[in-house]
Amino acid sequence: MFSRGFSRISRAGFNNYQWRQSCPALYTAVYHQLLWNSHPLEDLIPKGRGCMEINSCSSHLFHEARRQIHHNAASTIEDQSDPFSIVADELLILADRLRVMVVAEVPKLGSAAEYFFKLGVEGKRFRPTVLLLMATALNMPVPISSPERLSTARVSDSLATELRTRQQCIAEITEMIHVASLLHDDVLDDADTRRGVSSLNSVMGNKLSVLAGDFLLSRACVALASLKNTEVVSLLAKVVEHLVTGETMQMTTTSEQRLNMEYYMQKTYFKTASLISNSCKAIALLAGQTAEVATLAFEYGKNLGLAYQLIDDVLDYTGTSTSLGKGSLSDIRHGIVTAPLLFAIEEFPQLRQVVQRGFDNSADVDIALEYLGRSQGIQRAKALAQTHANLAAEAIDSLPENNNDEVQRSRRALIDLTQIVITRTK
Amino acid sequence: MFSRGFSRISRAGFNNYQWRQSCPALYTAVYHQLLWNSHPLEDLIPKGRGCMEINSCSSHLFHEARRQIHHNAASTIEDQSDPFSIVADELLILADRLRVMVVAEVPKLGSAAEYFFKLGVEGKRFRPTVLLLMATALNMPVPISSPERLSTARVSDSLATELRTRQQCIAEITEMIHVASLLHDDVLDDADTRRGVSSLNSVMGNKLSVLAGDFLLSRACVALASLKNTEVVSLLAKVVEHLVTGETMQMTTTSEQRLNMEYYMQKTYFKTASLISNSCKAIALLAGQTAEVATLAFEYGKNLGLAYQLIDDVLDYTGTSTSLGKGSLSDIRHGIVTAPLLFAIEEFPQLRQVVQRGFDNSADVDIALEYLGRSQGIQRAKALAQTHANLAAEAIDSLPENNNDEVQRSRRALIDLTQIVITRTK
Repeated sequence: MFSRGFSRISRAGFNNYQWRQSCPALYTAVYHQLLWNSHPLEDLIPKGRGCMEINSCSSHLFHEARRQIHHNAASTIEDQSDPFSIVADELLILADRLRVMVVAEVPKLGSAAEYFFKLGVEGKRFRPTVLLLMATALNMPVPISSPERLSTARVSDSLATELRTRQQCIAEITEMIHVASLLHDDVLDDADTRRGVSSLNSVMGNKLSVLAGDFLLSRACVALASLKNTEVVSLLAKVVEHLVTGETMQMTTTSEQRLNMEYYMQKTYFKTASLISNSCKAIALLAGQTAEVATLAFEYGKNLGLAYQLIDDVLDYTGTSTSLGKGSLSDIRHGIVTAPLLFAIEEFPQLRQVVQRGFDNSADVDIALEYLGRSQGIQRAKALAQTHANLAAEAIDSLPENNNDEVQRSRRALIDLTQIVITRTK
Repeated sequence: MFSRGFSRISRAGFNNYQWRQSCPALYTAVYHQLLWNSHPLEDLIPKGRGCMEINSCSSHLFHEARRQIHHNAASTIEDQSDPFSIVADELLILADRLRVMVVAEVPKLGSAAEYFFKLGVEGKRFRPTVLLLMATALNMPVPISSPERLSTARVSDSLATELRTRQQCIAEITEMIHVASLLHDDVLDDADTRRGVSSLNSVMGNKLSVLAGDFLLSRACVALASLKNTEVVSLLAKVVEHLVTGETMQMTTTSEQRLNMEYYMQKTYFKTASLISNSCKAIALLAGQTAEVATLAFEYGKNLGLAYQLIDDVLDYTGTSTSLGKGSLSDIRHGIVTAPLLFAIEEFPQLRQVVQRGFDNSADVDIALEYLGRSQGIQRAKALAQTHANLAAEAIDSLPENNNDEVQRSRRALIDLTQIVITRTK
């Protein structure tokens, strides 16, 4: 999900630092300071343990962190307005677990994969945030109130902690699959290299990108297997297939398919929305929720993912401003036709033949931009994103009623995220 | 397993056919004729069904094929002497199921992955052969003799058929993981491309190689999940991690590690023997065998894999002849130090500094070959292969006694394979 936006950021950052020629350990240390800063929780994390080895120690840590976050969130107005802050500390621990996990037997590979987990996605960890919020939104914490219920409450509390740990595992697996797909998407053909297209892996090396991605995928599989839930395994295995199918659809599209809105939306689902939607569903399944609730979780993820990608496509044209042509124009220059242009073609059919020529000629890019500017393409793409954002919010509103404060706050945060996604400017 | 030997063959074959510039469908059709020829069973296979969708129709087909093979094998001396022929027809169906499965939603990707399944590994399908033989070697078929036991026998027969289908699924998954690792191993760094190293993916494109590999891995995951056996899922997820670790160990080896026999054997286990050993174990686990039997199955696979790779390393120096320098010398030219040279260094310590220089200078290759010729390196590598082959055979001999003809024949075939592996000349 959200891969292209992130790719752009990471490429720029990565190209500034010729890490391959430098000492990987130094590089690791520098980035750790730059991007994360040391935090007191770091030393508390059991080293070498990811979600493959669920243990009471780390579960307890997470649980404590969550209580602390709950307390902090309730005490400040600022925190309440930011969905990310609700799970911020829990995410820090999660990121640290990921970081520890990727330090494999071969440090060079660990460094490669680790880079992504340190950087995070656009400074936020969007997917894990959504998933942890969803976990709380679907949970009904057991209140510890009367003394006679204490022992029962303790058992329930222990079960709730175990469930949370398993749901955190889904968040980790999702991030691993996402980063693996980024690494593999960035592998270039020789032809691209010759054309001088810069990318992460032109610095890192194709082969290392592939191996680091494979490494993450294999770790994700091992972690998935440890959950011992065959339905969840199937769900996330299917996601990997979708990511591949989506990327291939984009690579091998015919000129007819390139102009087809349905094909575009299908590709967008595979490439962007499948991972978050199926992970949301996995969160619900682990919690033992009904099929209806699992479907609502899925619908939230799907529509949030689609909304995000539609806005991403708009921003590729407009950038941070609202003016056309201020974006990177990366899609159109790579011959990738997205929603704004597809809507423009509906208004100006003569644009079809320009698009069908591909965009090897930069004059064609200018022509397309001119048509797009005269059309409602950008506005209609935004409107479609709004529609999907609304559908995502509706899915949350349709969840079974629950008056628990924590549950309600997480649901509000999930709804807030739908707006953050469509109003973002980067 | 056995990846380098196969890589060489596939590269040569692939480079002769500039398929990327041609019509993929035509390419597919041509290769189908050249390599497989149409066979009557083909039309009987339910289209679009892999082992993800286990169904009674395909199970019945397999079962019938197996009975037929049993009949054929018993009636000819020639068949009895060839381990491959025992499961030949079953393998044809398996290959066809794989072929059908890889025809994904995006045909171009299907063609890429399909290529490997058509070619097979060295004309044989080594891994699936071992696994199907192991399945029979560990099974106790229910004899259908007296009429009063017919209904019970039918139930048992149905269970046996279901088990066989699940074990065939392991064979398919193993082949998918193997081919995925071949595709990914062949991805090159830009540097390699610049040095003019030819490879499969220099024709096919790095990106398509990566995607085709990912596609197979994702299908393998989906198929694995469908088995609903979390222990087996964990086992094969771990294999993917081993393949990555082994490849990375080879890529990022230090000059000290390069000269270390233990490091070499560990890398060889990860790269070559882990897949077949853990798949053999999975076959035993699915059959509900004891931990002891599962371990023997694992030991067979591990030692067979190690023996195979050691001989592969020898053949890289000798080729089909017994003379040194007649092989492709691919390893040494890529700076990869294998068993023969490691043994030679033990006899001639002065060889260390030659090896530590890497082999960028071809004069160093000649010096190393001279030392190797004067040493017992080749003979000791062969002897080590023989040791592992013997250990593999011993694992089979240690299985619980069983007098069933089919079981005995499969066990003999597995033992024969250990000799075939070490006496092969290509």
